[in-house]
Amino acid sequence: MTVLLESKEIKKCVQLNEQLIPVIEDAFKNLAVGKTIMPPILRLDVHKYNGETDVKTAYIEGLDSYAIKVASGFFNNPKLGIPSSNGMMILLDSKTGVIKSLLLDKGYLTDVRTAIAGSIAAKYLSNQDSTKAGIIGAGLQAKLQLEALKLVRPIDKAFIWSRDRDKLNHFEEETKYLDLKIEKCSSIEELITKSEIVVTTTPSKSPLIKNEWLKKGLHITAMGSDAEEKNEIDPEILKNCDIYIPDSQSQTAVLGELHHAIQAKVISPNEHFNELGDIILNPDLGRKSKDDITICDLTGTGVQDTAIARFTFDIAMRKKLGTKI
Amino acid sequence: MTVLLESKEIKKCVQLNEQLIPVIEDAFKNLAVGKTIMPPILRLDVHKYNGETDVKTAYIEGLDSYAIKVASGFFNNPKLGIPSSNGMMILLDSKTGVIKSLLLDKGYLTDVRTAIAGSIAAKYLSNQDSTKAGIIGAGLQAKLQLEALKLVRPIDKAFIWSRDRDKLNHFEEETKYLDLKIEKCSSIEELITKSEIVVTTTPSKSPLIKNEWLKKGLHITAMGSDAEEKNEIDPEILKNCDIYIPDSQSQTAVLGELHHAIQAKVISPNEHFNELGDIILNPDLGRKSKDDITICDLTGTGVQDTAIARFTFDIAMRKKLGTKI
Repeated sequence: MTVLLESKEIKKCVQLNEQLIPVIEDAFKNLAVGKTIMPPILRLDVHKYNGETDVKTAYIEGLDSYAIKVASGFFNNPKLGIPSSNGMMILLDSKTGVIKSLLLDKGYLTDVRTAIAGSIAAKYLSNQDSTKAGIIGAGLQAKLQLEALKLVRPIDKAFIWSRDRDKLNHFEEETKYLDLKIEKCSSIEELITKSEIVVTTTPSKSPLIKNEWLKKGLHITAMGSDAEEKNEIDPEILKNCDIYIPDSQSQTAVLGELHHAIQAKVISPNEHFNELGDIILNPDLGRKSKDDITICDLTGTGVQDTAIARFTFDIAMRKKLGTKI
Repeated sequence: MTVLLESKEIKKCVQLNEQLIPVIEDAFKNLAVGKTIMPPILRLDVHKYNGETDVKTAYIEGLDSYAIKVASGFFNNPKLGIPSSNGMMILLDSKTGVIKSLLLDKGYLTDVRTAIAGSIAAKYLSNQDSTKAGIIGAGLQAKLQLEALKLVRPIDKAFIWSRDRDKLNHFEEETKYLDLKIEKCSSIEELITKSEIVVTTTPSKSPLIKNEWLKKGLHITAMGSDAEEKNEIDPEILKNCDIYIPDSQSQTAVLGELHHAIQAKVISPNEHFNELGDIILNPDLGRKSKDDITICDLTGTGVQDTAIARFTFDIAMRKKLGTKI
């Protein structure tokens, strides 16, 4: 028997809140201790329509189910009046491969688990008293990352920069519910100067943050790059920061900021970095002083998908939601 | 809007018959002419439960949809009284990435498109007057491959060998509907001696067919190997046959019989082979004489999945089947 969960039902089960932090932390911990089988991402590009579909999965040892996630981004869609993002998750039984559930979330769970990874990065790497967030980009993930930061840090002001003036102008109105002071910046340099925590949320293909803008105590979470050609921060930053943490080094070396630092030969392909899960297991591996410059490189992992799909399914079963097919 | 198609509905749309041959031939043709984006297979192993999940996909240029297929094989399932195979296909819109259909076929469409690839291999590579088929293995695909051969060749007798005596004993009864003489063989050598077309359908990890058993005019379709460790025919056979044809050389070099021939250094990794699609486009590239020994190496391709998912969806729409969600 398979349980079909539609988007509306999924949103009744899962919201962006503190409850999800330990769920996603557990996923990263399992990844760090090697209790996970996480194959490389399958990626299909449909260049003609400016589209891509990614498939991610991870089996976490000892758990009775695992997810396969299909996520599409078709970037001409907004012109057609439909969202760029789309997708679903499939939850399979670990013992039999039987499909337990189809989660037709249209990308919602990906949005949420990505934002939660941002809050985890800030929780372990940024200064605890940070009140000023800088968000580069003004799309959906920009809003969610800001909301997620508020779960772990006493943010009271956000600085925003976006190439898209229209989105930038709507940002303040769309984030009213966060009860924050929002200030639009005219340059990224200005944003960096004013912020303590910076999150990059763009599909940029050339660095937005320059090495010379780095300042003591800054934490940057780069979550926009999830493909070979994407690049948000100057490769030199990875060498000059005090701590660089990937979500999964095997992924960031191919898809993330690390990829570009290796290509630019500022980082050796043989260098080993602690991953986000290592820091969660041993927070002493994280920020050591108020002045440290810290970078977290997020490409999005299958373990996060398995974790949030399982969490959603459990709540849906308790709430008796879904259609049996 | 997404259309949910359940197994029962799918079986009303698609059966193993001649109608599917041009559908799957077209898929191979598109693959051969490079009009396809087909990323490497994503594979997740759940060793603890003797299980594996594969994800395959392919976008064929110019078509308005493409499929992502999730297929699991959990080989302890029969002990639990449930089938080993499981899975589903997701049909996405090529322009937007929107999910058009969920095909909950539980592996049925994979079984059918795999058998049809076997009939296409025999159509282009075996002698036209072949009446004697040899089937190694006695599982579901053994039966379907035999049925598929009958679509293209005047088969009147089948020789069967299987390690599993129990399955072997049931084979005749289970294939009564094919109206064939069935003869159980006590060895693979005997089966090869008596057959004109041989199909291997096992998950064997060491060669079943020895080089010294080859005989003039023989055609072998090796369809069991779809993973690094699987191997059904002696690597020497790939060197000594007259024509070796992979479904996709990039896949057989990693997952198929070619993989083992390269590892055994009997074939150079740089050697180029015509693929099944090349032979369909130009049958002169296939069998040249009655005495040729021909081999077809099938690992299963994403283009076949996209082709059969699209075909099923079109028929379902015409028959007004499915549930809108």
